[in-house]
Amino acid sequence: MTSARQISTEQETREQALVDRVLRSFADCESPRLKQLMEGIVRHLHEFLRDVRLTEVEWKEGIDFLTAVGHITDDKRQEFILLSDTLGASMQTVTINNEAYGDATEATVFGPFFVEGAPEVPRGGDISFGATGQPCWVEGTVKDIEGNPLPGTRIEVWEADEAGLYDVQYDDGRTAARAHLFTDDEGRYSFWGVTPTPYPIPHDGPVGKMLGATGRSPMRASHLHFMVSAPACRTLVTHIFVRGDELLESDTVFGVKDSLVQDFVEQPASTPTPDGRVVEGSWARTRFDIVLARA
Amino acid sequence: MTSARQISTEQETREQALVDRVLRSFADCESPRLKQLMEGIVRHLHEFLRDVRLTEVEWKEGIDFLTAVGHITDDKRQEFILLSDTLGASMQTVTINNEAYGDATEATVFGPFFVEGAPEVPRGGDISFGATGQPCWVEGTVKDIEGNPLPGTRIEVWEADEAGLYDVQYDDGRTAARAHLFTDDEGRYSFWGVTPTPYPIPHDGPVGKMLGATGRSPMRASHLHFMVSAPACRTLVTHIFVRGDELLESDTVFGVKDSLVQDFVEQPASTPTPDGRVVEGSWARTRFDIVLARA
Repeated sequence: MTSARQISTEQETREQALVDRVLRSFADCESPRLKQLMEGIVRHLHEFLRDVRLTEVEWKEGIDFLTAVGHITDDKRQEFILLSDTLGASMQTVTINNEAYGDATEATVFGPFFVEGAPEVPRGGDISFGATGQPCWVEGTVKDIEGNPLPGTRIEVWEADEAGLYDVQYDDGRTAARAHLFTDDEGRYSFWGVTPTPYPIPHDGPVGKMLGATGRSPMRASHLHFMVSAPACRTLVTHIFVRGDELLESDTVFGVKDSLVQDFVEQPASTPTPDGRVVEGSWARTRFDIVLARA
Repeated sequence: MTSARQISTEQETREQALVDRVLRSFADCESPRLKQLMEGIVRHLHEFLRDVRLTEVEWKEGIDFLTAVGHITDDKRQEFILLSDTLGASMQTVTINNEAYGDATEATVFGPFFVEGAPEVPRGGDISFGATGQPCWVEGTVKDIEGNPLPGTRIEVWEADEAGLYDVQYDDGRTAARAHLFTDDEGRYSFWGVTPTPYPIPHDGPVGKMLGATGRSPMRASHLHFMVSAPACRTLVTHIFVRGDELLESDTVFGVKDSLVQDFVEQPASTPTPDGRVVEGSWARTRFDIVLARA
């Protein structure tokens, strides 16, 4: 990028001399990895400043923006994760650390709404615990990369309700639309949840302001979260998405992968359910067969 | 840098596809400059992540670090500016926006300790207002680039006391070691201050922790701040540094420029002062002739 800058050689030299001086300041760093990270931050940060010729007013706006991100962040809201998500940095980190591995199911972003200690449901149980939405039957298998079923695999699932909110976004301390369950002897699992619907990420803060100013939507494509862990296998953090959702191409955190888009098949009212449950009105069903890579 | 990465072409393609997708998300941004800035941030941020192959644990540590920087920042303490300063980003922004201009005096970082509305002192007056330290006589001229004196130029000066603290770092609301004054008809100025001494930037927070972990010192080279403004001239924000200070090479915010290093000449006790003032013990004197570029 350097050659594209329209500045004098003298100015270029002054700017590069400063970069070199900052890099030298980490000469005594004992951890080679920390040194590498700090040098990488310095190199890329300075390249950014020099490429865009950041003005002093813009620098101040940047400081104010980060300050606002810091101040809205608390133990319930993590605006820095939202910022990382909306710049694609979270998804790039997932991509770097979860290289495609044969036919193993792909990973996507973890998101900020996972909670430890969600209740266990039996296979075929209902994870909604009163969360609003169309009932949705989800079933599938968990196998290893050679096709062997993985019995006793722990599956955590969590999702937003029909209003687009996770349980933790309500003030009443409810636990809903989240649970864990285990696969049976043939690696099978199934549960009732609610059909995923699109929702905006929290956009009343500085990240929402950034999205608005840049003409971006805060909407996430409809999805249902999975975290799947079995002994000797790589733990898989992923979602499934709804085929046909018009937000698949513009998911604001860039989490969509083609292989994770599933058919959610509408079932008209009074269609018999797989487990004989009586459902009022329509319901949906989907299948998600999971393949875990070796650890 | 791309070619240095030891990854498969397929993985390289996946990572680049994500970068492209994030860049496309800014397609509808109406401000061309904001679009350029966001695209620059995305390009360089992703290059950083991909070059260092950031792990998911390191990503989380980064989020936690920024959160801590945000939480310690308030209306009196600006840890994001400290972070920018210690990564050389503030100084690079100054360098980009204050290209060397003929013989004009060079700029350096503004720092976080300037306060609007500091008291006026007459020429030859004392800006220390009780701040501790060795008395120091400072004098010089302000001229334009053609050598014409600039009468009535406003000069703001501010500095730390002998304990290494600015007035605003005390809890008692004092105003000390800061003032403004004006040049006379021949562009001359002079004042009494205190001889600058080295001090650490506030290092009890996350930025101090970063400096410690990377083997860096929090010390700034001794300096005295100036902000100089005259009609039709570029306002100059700068410091002067003390020749011989061993911290000149390792100033933790990278603010030192050779042209700003001045002789502070020790005057033994009972050396007569320029204005007949009686000083107890030794004092020092320095000269700083300032040249302002055209606005």
